[in-house]
Amino acid sequence: MTQSFSSFTPPTRILMGPGPSDVYPEVLTALARPTIGHLDPKFVDLMDEVKQLLQYAFQTENSLTMPISAPGSAGMESVFVNLVEPGDKVIVCQNGVFGGRMQQNVERCGGQAIMVQDDWGKPTDLNKVRETLQANPDVKALAFVHAETSTGVLNDAKALCELAREFDCLSIVDAVTSLGGSELRVDDWNIDAIYSGTQKCLSCIPGLSPVSFSERAIAVIKQRTHPVQSWFLDMDLVMGYWGQGAKRAYHHTAPVNSIYALHESLLILQQEGLQKAWERHHRNHISLKEGLEKLGLALLVEEKYRLPQLNMVLIPDGVDDAKVRNRLLNEFNLEIGAGLGSLAGKVWRIGLMGCGSSQKNVGYCLSSLEAVLN
Amino acid sequence: MTQSFSSFTPPTRILMGPGPSDVYPEVLTALARPTIGHLDPKFVDLMDEVKQLLQYAFQTENSLTMPISAPGSAGMESVFVNLVEPGDKVIVCQNGVFGGRMQQNVERCGGQAIMVQDDWGKPTDLNKVRETLQANPDVKALAFVHAETSTGVLNDAKALCELAREFDCLSIVDAVTSLGGSELRVDDWNIDAIYSGTQKCLSCIPGLSPVSFSERAIAVIKQRTHPVQSWFLDMDLVMGYWGQGAKRAYHHTAPVNSIYALHESLLILQQEGLQKAWERHHRNHISLKEGLEKLGLALLVEEKYRLPQLNMVLIPDGVDDAKVRNRLLNEFNLEIGAGLGSLAGKVWRIGLMGCGSSQKNVGYCLSSLEAVLN
Repeated sequence: MTQSFSSFTPPTRILMGPGPSDVYPEVLTALARPTIGHLDPKFVDLMDEVKQLLQYAFQTENSLTMPISAPGSAGMESVFVNLVEPGDKVIVCQNGVFGGRMQQNVERCGGQAIMVQDDWGKPTDLNKVRETLQANPDVKALAFVHAETSTGVLNDAKALCELAREFDCLSIVDAVTSLGGSELRVDDWNIDAIYSGTQKCLSCIPGLSPVSFSERAIAVIKQRTHPVQSWFLDMDLVMGYWGQGAKRAYHHTAPVNSIYALHESLLILQQEGLQKAWERHHRNHISLKEGLEKLGLALLVEEKYRLPQLNMVLIPDGVDDAKVRNRLLNEFNLEIGAGLGSLAGKVWRIGLMGCGSSQKNVGYCLSSLEAVLN
Repeated sequence: MTQSFSSFTPPTRILMGPGPSDVYPEVLTALARPTIGHLDPKFVDLMDEVKQLLQYAFQTENSLTMPISAPGSAGMESVFVNLVEPGDKVIVCQNGVFGGRMQQNVERCGGQAIMVQDDWGKPTDLNKVRETLQANPDVKALAFVHAETSTGVLNDAKALCELAREFDCLSIVDAVTSLGGSELRVDDWNIDAIYSGTQKCLSCIPGLSPVSFSERAIAVIKQRTHPVQSWFLDMDLVMGYWGQGAKRAYHHTAPVNSIYALHESLLILQQEGLQKAWERHHRNHISLKEGLEKLGLALLVEEKYRLPQLNMVLIPDGVDDAKVRNRLLNEFNLEIGAGLGSLAGKVWRIGLMGCGSSQKNVGYCLSSLEAVLN
């Protein structure tokens, strides 16, 4: 090997895309503390704290609440591979990219995904879901995305979970972008399985996926007749390591430093308080929206189901999408997101997530956009 | 939530178990640099460097060489879910815990694992492998563990891969503990699929799994008739993000900071040089072995197939396993490993991995053990 490289010094960006979001400095400090063993008693104590802090963030008393040692898409997979067996029917609500990923997951587990499609930028239609549940009395689960990262739409998780309960099926919720940014109550809303990511409204580094399973979901896992197709994500095995009280059995080597970081970010959330964090996300969203309107920019999503942490800005006619994003990145060190899927080229995605949901970021984004668009 | 926690300050340990090993301070510094976007052009450049540095570490020109965004057990799973289809036969050599995990993986993919069993602490018997290959001409792959972390045995990877090639099947190699510590040459030895971990001889943080696939393996993946059962680990999709040249398509959010850390640890390996790193692991192993013998302690594994980076020390009669390990941890901040599976209570596992393979660690371990055993 002839080529020689040197240490990497990243540019200092302001991350206002769909995630990763800016990370709290305290979280980066925690991340870099010396690694200890994944079975060290001090680390096991830390795992217990992380579980309790996650229970607070999710508003749940579920004992099976923990971070999967991999990104949100593995968290999604952990839910589906454990709950879906070959032949199972799952209703999947799709109004963006991530409902489609759920469908892929169901099908790769040998299940049948019954799709409820809605337009990208619109919320899932509760009436259609009800009709689909009525037409499929043998359905095992209803799966949907709480905060659609590809469209900026907030689906009505509470109402969807009520429907699931009414029709006696499990509810599966993608909360990757909502956790910490939008109201979310796992126990009050009777959510059975939920997964999130660390790189959005928790302002932690990317790479972990907090999950939580209700007692109903655990009972379903325990009654499986086929082995879980993933060894790494088999919750029965994972519980041996993350489980309460009992001797922690080695399953895989936990990402020790990332867990330090998650602990710190959850501490910050606890100190602020969930309610206040949700309010802050809302307040800064309003402020951004008003500023965008002054610049003559409109939002894709109607106000009543708009995500405060991820704003879909319609790209005005005649404006070059990539050119604007590149200038923001190169001249202002500001990252905003491109549209995904059918919204590519039509919208920008501006995130106000976690510590990035601040007046400072709102102001910087507006002044940078103004400079580039004029 | 009433309970209030505070930031976590880990104790300063010396990690001489089976991994995680001590992490280079430069790696922790790199880890804590500010997060940037996973599609940022600067990050994409870094990904290219990581690929090249991994190609060096693996001694391969395989274009499909990259880190899986999850620990080694997910790396293992990425190899099996992509290469094994329902009904496929795979010969799995087992002489420790991790061969058993390979068997689990094959079976969860719907494949048939044909086991070649050898005693724990002994290497895989090449004659038995040859006979099993002869008896099963339709076998798709031969899978084995290069460095068995549960027993401290080095299997003859070169000879096993030659057998695989002779019988025209793929070779699958677990190099979690060998990469960076023992001679390993992916291209020269014709290895078709290999996975490793970052938390062993690379002295990086735990949480990533470097993998590499040969062109032969890629051709097998491309000819699959069943979809890969894991969405997260589907190499066809992962390649869209990590692939050369082409536009990087979003698959999942990469663990950006962990990639910074891996890059730094691979740089350090490149600067030292692979050959010198292997020699250093050997030299410090000899030094530890001699010191252990002076203390009256013996090693489980015969010298000719003993791992230099992981030493299996027989626990003397009458010595309390857990008590010794607890005293080392609590009084000396020294972590050594317990035995796994059938070796539990019979051996200690003393790691000399990555930057932990040093005269300083050898000396500290010996003096601490001496103090506790007397």
